Amino acid sequence: MKKILLLGAGRSASVLIDYLVSNAAAEKWQVTIGDVTVDHLAPEVREHEQVSVFPFDVHDLAQRETCIVEADVVISMLPAAFHPLVAETCLSQNRHLVTASYVPPEIKAMDEEAKEKGLTFIMECGLDPGIDHMSAIKIIHHIKAQGGTVTSFKSFTGGLVAPESDNNPWHYKFTWNPRNVVLAGQGTAKFIQNGTYKYIPYHHLFNRTETFLVDGFGYFDGYANRDSLGYRKLYGLDNIPTMLRGTLRRAGYCQAWHVLVQLGLTDDSYSLEGSDRMTYRELVESLLPAKTQEKNLRERVAKYIGLNPEADELRLVEWTGLFDELPIDLEKATPAQALEKLLTQKWKLSPGDKDMIVMLHQFEYELNGQRKSLTSSLVVIGEDEVKTAMAKTVGLPIGIATKLLLQGKLRQTGVVVPLQAELYEPVLEELEQYGVKFKEREG
Amino acid sequence: MKKILLLGAGRSASVLIDYLVSNAAAEKWQVTIGDVTVDHLAPEVREHEQVSVFPFDVHDLAQRETCIVEADVVISMLPAAFHPLVAETCLSQNRHLVTASYVPPEIKAMDEEAKEKGLTFIMECGLDPGIDHMSAIKIIHHIKAQGGTVTSFKSFTGGLVAPESDNNPWHYKFTWNPRNVVLAGQGTAKFIQNGTYKYIPYHHLFNRTETFLVDGFGYFDGYANRDSLGYRKLYGLDNIPTMLRGTLRRAGYCQAWHVLVQLGLTDDSYSLEGSDRMTYRELVESLLPAKTQEKNLRERVAKYIGLNPEADELRLVEWTGLFDELPIDLEKATPAQALEKLLTQKWKLSPGDKDMIVMLHQFEYELNGQRKSLTSSLVVIGEDEVKTAMAKTVGLPIGIATKLLLQGKLRQTGVVVPLQAELYEPVLEELEQYGVKFKEREG
Repeated sequence: MKKILLLGAGRSASVLIDYLVSNAAAEKWQVTIGDVTVDHLAPEVREHEQVSVFPFDVHDLAQRETCIVEADVVISMLPAAFHPLVAETCLSQNRHLVTASYVPPEIKAMDEEAKEKGLTFIMECGLDPGIDHMSAIKIIHHIKAQGGTVTSFKSFTGGLVAPESDNNPWHYKFTWNPRNVVLAGQGTAKFIQNGTYKYIPYHHLFNRTETFLVDGFGYFDGYANRDSLGYRKLYGLDNIPTMLRGTLRRAGYCQAWHVLVQLGLTDDSYSLEGSDRMTYRELVESLLPAKTQEKNLRERVAKYIGLNPEADELRLVEWTGLFDELPIDLEKATPAQALEKLLTQKWKLSPGDKDMIVMLHQFEYELNGQRKSLTSSLVVIGEDEVKTAMAKTVGLPIGIATKLLLQGKLRQTGVVVPLQAELYEPVLEELEQYGVKFKEREG
Repeated sequence: MKKILLLGAGRSASVLIDYLVSNAAAEKWQVTIGDVTVDHLAPEVREHEQVSVFPFDVHDLAQRETCIVEADVVISMLPAAFHPLVAETCLSQNRHLVTASYVPPEIKAMDEEAKEKGLTFIMECGLDPGIDHMSAIKIIHHIKAQGGTVTSFKSFTGGLVAPESDNNPWHYKFTWNPRNVVLAGQGTAKFIQNGTYKYIPYHHLFNRTETFLVDGFGYFDGYANRDSLGYRKLYGLDNIPTMLRGTLRRAGYCQAWHVLVQLGLTDDSYSLEGSDRMTYRELVESLLPAKTQEKNLRERVAKYIGLNPEADELRLVEWTGLFDELPIDLEKATPAQALEKLLTQKWKLSPGDKDMIVMLHQFEYELNGQRKSLTSSLVVIGEDEVKTAMAKTVGLPIGIATKLLLQGKLRQTGVVVPLQAELYEPVLEELEQYGVKFKEREG
């Protein structure tokens, strides 16, 4: 029997748990699941003979050591901030580790010791980061193997609502941490385009989007992520003239979000005076110049932002309730906190709603003196509110990587990101069985 | 003989030193001046029989204690960051202190102990803060004494170039720390207007200005300072419906600066890739969307910002050299650092150039059921490059306050800001002898 310890059993672990449970018999796994509470786990998980569950406290060093030393491999689905703690104990107890999060500096520093001990710490093995790396590097390796040179790589991912559950004018619902969505993009976006470094300040980010058509799913707008430059080295594309990573939204969303940014509604740096006695309409008023003419609020916002009062983005903004005498009912709220509260009500998934993951890679490359282009896209729709597309695309790569590790099929040790064929090939192959399959087309 | 210790003898101390030297005989002062270097001081200062100078190192505790204990009062014109150190030694050695800087929390915490020891620490006794407090509170006290109620108070100050030395289209030259001018206003401006709290995000700050006419000097635009709200309590105007403090620039400056903000040229949060091999034109290019049409750079900037290519603000931007193939020649520069370097060359005071201080207070108040208004304005023009308006308006209030302190005319102890008649009345009165005189008019 091989022993797997899974730490963290929240919403996003649902599909991973299914994967572990359904492979347990064939793979001879004993699966132990620990989290602050484990009561929410389904009876078929809790009562499975190859599964045990226990209340786990990440801050309890003794417990961490005891449960980790008993496992062959540890999977952490805890919040990313706890991964260094878990990794530290894996190192001291000589155990492998798998997570879906970015490599933090503390874990990067463990690389050498992990290698000496023959340990493998697989990081960034979920969706984004994870499937994005694997699907991109597979194509890059293929182009290079033919003798080609990649001249442009644009990659976008979005966590969205499925078309069948899309019933609001933003074509968006929260399928992930609302706070991160409200604060998305703050800072300066950096990328390179035709050999020129480009910088987009936050107040222009959402009106400098690029539009993409995904076959069968219509149009999406992509806005640039904060830092695309570091990916050049990671993907072995150091001298690539164009490299851009970004986030996808349905057409219309970004223009309307730009209005919120322009108004200052996503500012998280100061608290509003008396926000507990304020309405959303008053909040908008506090961000506008004083009223000088008898215009309505929508017209005044339009004038301030430089839009036609009939512009579609204002219809979207109005739909949120921002122009209504609706109490904010939060003490010392920042504008971003007030906005998050409003949108959490408006963009809530209803029972039965499904989410959708869209990923898009656009390559341009030169091969035998010819310029070519390739688009690779992935659309995954959730099965229901538990087996979401997000839980599937985050959980399955982790489950498959864990299986490969326990089967002894991975030779790499140290801190590993899935950019090697021994990892990405079998993961991408098995993902296809679960409907996580990229479509490629030229151009 | 009374002994005055002046720490810090830089540019802005020139008029203060003159004041101390010229009052030394009549007031029976022995003046000791310490700074990192004191070689630049004029012979008539260095060789004056009632003056001595010495090299001073603020980090040398023993020296700090020795020189402070020998003085009756200490004036600090050192950079504001060093004031807590100086104040600490004044407290331990039982000596009075005078500065022109805002009260930092460390000094605020010394209030009680200073009172127990009968010490007076006069802070915020320069121009802004300083003359702004004194001139405003005098009017507020006067209105209140008559039984009136202040309903609106707007106060603006600008450090500018004098009309006779104004020969560039921005009507601005650096008369103070260039870095602070480039970064001015970053954050969110907060004020209250007709009972409504107002917040202006930085990316709108310079296009939400208010225009003022100053008799004999033309039009000025004022933009809001970061926090006007705290001044309500300070001035005893807790329930005032309108309170706004801001900074003055000549008409035209703010609109053009708004273009620089929109482009992202004042961003100090990241370093440009390869800034040492880059021109200003390339910097502007890196902030613009990729070229799609055969338009020139000015037209593309105009389109991006939503301006007519012939707009006056673009003429001002072009004048700076930002559209030229001029090397930045700085390693790892932020956009703000690159901009500062360019403007330092363009906005340099020429030999003989004079600076100008403009301060403007606008009051609305109710008296005996009538609505009244009052504007009080101050214009001070520098005598030359040394005796600048800035050095005059910062140094003279400090000198006068020091005199009052040594004459035993101040009863207040502890940490004091010049908001009491015993301080502001004689200071404002004596300032008039030096041409620092407010003009008042109704309306």
